[in-house]
This record gives sequence, structure tokens and C-alpha cells, in this order.
Amino acid sequence: MKDFHYYTPTEVVFGKDSEKEIGHLVKKHGGGKVLIHYGGKSAETSGLLDTVRRQLDAVGIPFVELGGVVPNPVLSKVHEGVQISKNENVDFILAVGGGSVIDSAKAIAYGLAYDGDVWDFFSKKTEAFAAYPIGVILTIPAAGSEMSNGCVITNEEGYSKRAYDNDLCRPRFAVMNPIRTYTLSAYQTACGAVDMMMHTMERYFSHDDDMLLTDAIAESLMRTVCECAPKVIAAPNDYILRSQIMWAGSLAHNNLTGCGTIGDFATHMLEHELSAMFNVAHGAGLAAIWPHWAEYVLSENPTRFAQFAVNVLKIANNFRSAEETAREGIEAMKIFYKKIGMPTSIPELLGRKATDDEIREMADKCSLGRTSTIGHLKILSYDDMVEIYNMANR
Amino acid sequence: MKDFHYYTPTEVVFGKDSEKEIGHLVKKHGGGKVLIHYGGKSAETSGLLDTVRRQLDAVGIPFVELGGVVPNPVLSKVHEGVQISKNENVDFILAVGGGSVIDSAKAIAYGLAYDGDVWDFFSKKTEAFAAYPIGVILTIPAAGSEMSNGCVITNEEGYSKRAYDNDLCRPRFAVMNPIRTYTLSAYQTACGAVDMMMHTMERYFSHDDDMLLTDAIAESLMRTVCECAPKVIAAPNDYILRSQIMWAGSLAHNNLTGCGTIGDFATHMLEHELSAMFNVAHGAGLAAIWPHWAEYVLSENPTRFAQFAVNVLKIANNFRSAEETAREGIEAMKIFYKKIGMPTSIPELLGRKATDDEIREMADKCSLGRTSTIGHLKILSYDDMVEIYNMANR
Repeated sequence: MKDFHYYTPTEVVFGKDSEKEIGHLVKKHGGGKVLIHYGGKSAETSGLLDTVRRQLDAVGIPFVELGGVVPNPVLSKVHEGVQISKNENVDFILAVGGGSVIDSAKAIAYGLAYDGDVWDFFSKKTEAFAAYPIGVILTIPAAGSEMSNGCVITNEEGYSKRAYDNDLCRPRFAVMNPIRTYTLSAYQTACGAVDMMMHTMERYFSHDDDMLLTDAIAESLMRTVCECAPKVIAAPNDYILRSQIMWAGSLAHNNLTGCGTIGDFATHMLEHELSAMFNVAHGAGLAAIWPHWAEYVLSENPTRFAQFAVNVLKIANNFRSAEETAREGIEAMKIFYKKIGMPTSIPELLGRKATDDEIREMADKCSLGRTSTIGHLKILSYDDMVEIYNMANR
Repeated sequence: MKDFHYYTPTEVVFGKDSEKEIGHLVKKHGGGKVLIHYGGKSAETSGLLDTVRRQLDAVGIPFVELGGVVPNPVLSKVHEGVQISKNENVDFILAVGGGSVIDSAKAIAYGLAYDGDVWDFFSKKTEAFAAYPIGVILTIPAAGSEMSNGCVITNEEGYSKRAYDNDLCRPRFAVMNPIRTYTLSAYQTACGAVDMMMHTMERYFSHDDDMLLTDAIAESLMRTVCECAPKVIAAPNDYILRSQIMWAGSLAHNNLTGCGTIGDFATHMLEHELSAMFNVAHGAGLAAIWPHWAEYVLSENPTRFAQFAVNVLKIANNFRSAEETAREGIEAMKIFYKKIGMPTSIPELLGRKATDDEIREMADKCSLGRTSTIGHLKILSYDDMVEIYNMANR
């Protein structure tokens, strides 16, 4: 096991009545003037934006608004948010939405505290030393950005999608009302479930496989998601099921499931290029890549994949061959993905095969022009990336 | 399930090299002048105090010291700490030790920010509105105070032991080096294991038994402690085992295992009177009380006790009778306690029976002079308390 830091300062207010605390929370966490940041029309039509406005009015906190964040949030919107916030003397960003809105808000929070272009952090030109505080009203459980230190932004010039991790951007609070997630489509719900599974799996498939408590917690979380995701798709207004999925999304990515391990995150990196190039949903892209990554790297730690198969997917252990148990687990995971309507290959994801040129371009970007590797369980070069994309493309 | 708040702002730095960060952490979290607070001689003889002093010197932070905190920490020491801190213009309390030292530090942090007597918070006379920041270097995994909002102090006048819960006292950081726990005796280790089990069980035995993810996490944590505690007693220098126990202690009481449930905590309340009257170790007292509390309240939610038996203690489910499965679980828990050298009755704890007068006095204090009840799974009056103490006294 590795030494670890665990830092999750986000104040979570979870439940049916959680929205009553929005005004109080913004005030408590230092908001003087707020930018309400959101995505599409549903925030308005659902009445959620009105709730937020009333809550801020009630505590006398002024605000401006900026909607229009798109899935795979873009740098131009971040620039717009920074500019508005500077002009309006905003000192607190309130994200109303899912991971895309939260990540856009995080990037604005960095940009507001920085004189240069916020892309400098994502291009690894420099490190952030400050960020304005943000709060979250979560409507889509998936990315876990509401408690995480991560932020992913797409630069439309060249369509590169890049992540930047820093504790400075961890939200001060997150309001989570499971009822707000009843209207998510089966597809959105499934994409979310894949994302939270993958956040846990990326940390789980590691050479550090001796941190028993972290394993036990990670396995519990994954079992709960595997059990509840198909059920909630069949019963979208079930409060208990929606609650499990919503809370799992946060715990899957606040690093609870990674204490003592070094995460792999190669599947995430490979997927970022897919969704940047084809603008597909992140969760669906992950489902299309993971089984092929798993087959490709399985031999690095077969007992780990066997443990996953038995403890998460309830495969009977084949004591004579960890590798056979492991392979059954990968098949069971594909069956789970299919059951919740997710693709398990690039052709299923895109409706066509990717071309060789497209695959080479994705691998080229993912390896930063063949200069960089990804992954930890197995370190992947450009050639490995091409091979995994090709396996996923059959 | 219940709506919940989850707020764990403590920055955890865990591992072999964690102590290198002490100076940096105090500085980062605003320490200008520090009170180093500790218990007995082992902090000095182990070299830990010297490490702390060197770390503070290295970042140029001045400090004063106050040792002598006893198990079941007392109000007079808290008063002493407040006075020294006021005289010396201390603005940060650094607890070096286990739950007793941390709780004493928390009480000093409240007292330093308050003009009256800090006991006012414990006697419920008033609420705290501020506390000075504290940091922790943990040496005894047990109480979970390093991440919790709780604090328990014994007032020597009348020997009343009282708890006060408030988010203000959650430590800013906790440094945890499992190697520092190698020297704990088998008895200390076992008492710690009981305490962390009980922190989880108090939240688990609830009428709110529909928060699946919280259950799954709580059960994982309890399984891990049950598995590792006997092993670590047999192999006290095993880093991996010590790490599981150390991290479990923090997660057992930072409320992760209580998200969505209302905790019971009757066993804790009954035990507080035992350890206040007889000055016994808290963990041992809990082990002596729990099996009898469990038998007394079992009929309130037998399926919950059956789930505990099957999912935590690996008892084969008796599908025809939840109650029989539940009773097997209680017996298995007693066997676990005995296996790690813990008592399962008051005579085993004290070496003699408690007298009727002692039992009536404990029940009287626990019910605040027969004016108050405890518990949630079953609400317990004075008479119930006497009955449970009597059951435990056979």
C-alpha cells in the first residue's frame, strides 16, 4: 500500500429537504456575490433555478447568471464566465447541474484568481495557487465532481480534452436532492452508473492490492451500483434507489476508494479522446473501452481481476485459475453494461467503426504526440493505445 | 432513510512518511503559536514529541507544551490548558496521542474561544459558536476523534462523563503513521477495535435500514476490523494490519457509516457511566455492555440483527427465523470479544459484580436523574437501563 492523503472538505447536504439550505450555505461559505452557472433549459423548467434565486434573495445575496454549459464543457464558456465574474465582482460560483457544469464552474473559479489564460493549468504550463470558492447543487450523479479535486475542460481549438487536479477546486458544499434525478433518462442514468463504476475501478485495478479496507469499501460501492443501476432504470422514481446511485457517485470519486492505491485511469484517458473527437457521452465511451483495456492488461495482475469478479460481480471462484475467473468477470461486466443499455465497443458507441486515421489521431493526442504514456497497472505507450482502440473497434 | 449532512473537513495524511508534514500542516492551517498537548511519558520516550518539536522549529512556529492527559480526560486538565493557552497567546492546539488527548484538546479549543466555563457546553447550558483550530498526530486508533465532531470530558466533581458534539471541533488535519501503533499492547489494541466496531454498530442498529450503500460500507468496515484485530494482536508489527485498524478507526466515527441512519448510541451512554464510576477502559466497557443491550432490544428489529450476523460475522442465514440468526450473531460477537481478550460482562470487566446501589447510581446519572431517555432503536428509560446493567452483571 501507498501513503495517502485524504481530503474531502465538501459539506454535503443530502436529501429531500436539502435545497432549503442553499442560501444559508452560500452565506456560511463566504459568498458575497454569486455567479449561478448552469447548462440547458431543464434547470429553468424544473423550477430549480427559481428555487436557487429565491434562496439567495432570502439571505440578501446578489447574483448574476450564466447558462449554456454543454456536455464536455468548453473553454470558450469558461472564458465567458471568468469575464462576466470579473466585470460583476463575483466572488462565489454556484454550479447547478452535473459534472460538466461543475467542471466549468471550477475552471471559472481558477480563472478568476489568475491573470493569465486558465488553459495554462490544463496544458500543464503552470500550477494554480488560488481559486474562488464554489458550491454545487447536483442534478446528475455521475462524474463525482461535487466532491472531487478534478476538472476536465475541452479546448475547441484542436479539440483537446484535458484534466487538471488540484484540491483548491474542491467544492465548499454540495446540495443533493435525489428527487431532482427522477427525470434523468435511462441513458443518462446508465452513463452515470458507468462513470461511478469506472472511478472506483480505475483506483481498484492497481498493483497496490493490500489495502484491505479500501478494497472492501470499493467492492461494496461497486456491488451497490451494479445492483441498483438496472433497478433504478426500471423504476426511475424510486427514492431509495436514486439515493444509492447519487451518493455512490460522490464517494466513487472523492478518493475514499483510492486510499492506499495508485490509480490507473488509462480507460479515462483513452475515453477522453473518444468523447473529444466524437462528442459522445463520457459514460458510454468508458463502457466501450474498458472491456478491451481489461483484456489487454489482465496478465499484469490476474488475481486482482479475479477478486473483482468474485467480490463485485459474484462470479464463482475458479480456484485452479485466477485468469479464468478474471475473464468471466470481464464478460460479466460486459453483460452488466449491455443490461443497462451501454455499448461495449466503438462500433456500438458510434454506429460505425472508427477509421484507422481516427484511431491514430486519438492515440497521438492521448500520448501528447507520442511523448507520453498513460496508466499504472500497465504503462501504455502510443502503440498500446492504438492496439486497445483497435480491439475496441472490432 | 433520513436526510443527512456529511462534513469531514479533516485533511488526513496517512503513512510511514506522514510525520514529515507536521510543520507544513500547522502552518497551512493557520497555526501561529501552538500548544502541544499530550498524555503520558510514551510520547516523549518514543521520540514523537521530539519529532514534533523539530518540525515546528523548522517552520519557525513557537510552542508551549502541556502533558498529563489521562484516559477519560478530566475537566481540570482542560481548565489548565485553557489558562496556559490564554497566558501564552496560543492560537492552535496540537494533540499528540489518542482519543483522550484529542478530546482534551477539543475542549481547550472551545474554552479558549469562550468567556465562561467550558463545562457549560457539556452540561448543555449553552452552545459553542467558535473554537480554535486543532491538529492531531494520532497514536492510538480507537475513538475516531481525529475526524469526528465529538468530544467527551469527565467532570471530577461528581464524576459525570459528558459528550458534546459540534462540527467546530473537527480537527483541521490528522497525521497517522501506523508504525507509531506497533507498541500498543494487545489490550489497548483490542479496546480500540471494540470502540471502532461500536461506533459503526451504534449507527447500524437503526430503524433506518434502507440506505443500502451506507450498510454495505459499514458492513465492509466491520468485517475488516473483525478479520484484522485478532491477527494484529498476534502480529503487532504488521504494517498492513496496523494500517487497516488505524484507518478503520477514523472512518468508523467520521459519520461515513451513518449517512442516512439515526444512530442509537445507548451502549455508549451506558458505558460512559461505567468508565466514569470505575475508570475502566472505554472499549472494554463497551464489550461488557453490548451483548446485553443487544439481547434486550433485539425484538425491535430482528432482521437487522440477522443481517449483521450474516453480512458481518459470516453466520449462515437461518431463513426460517431471523431471530435465531440474530441470536447466533450476538453469540458470535461475544466469541469475537473473548478472542481478542475483552470482557463480555460487568463481572469480567471489574473482577467483581457491581452492587445494586452502583447500578442504580449509574442508571440515575445516565438518565440525568430519571428525567431523560437514551437510545433510538429502542428508547430506554431509567428502568430499562437498570435492567440492562443487571443483565450485564450476571
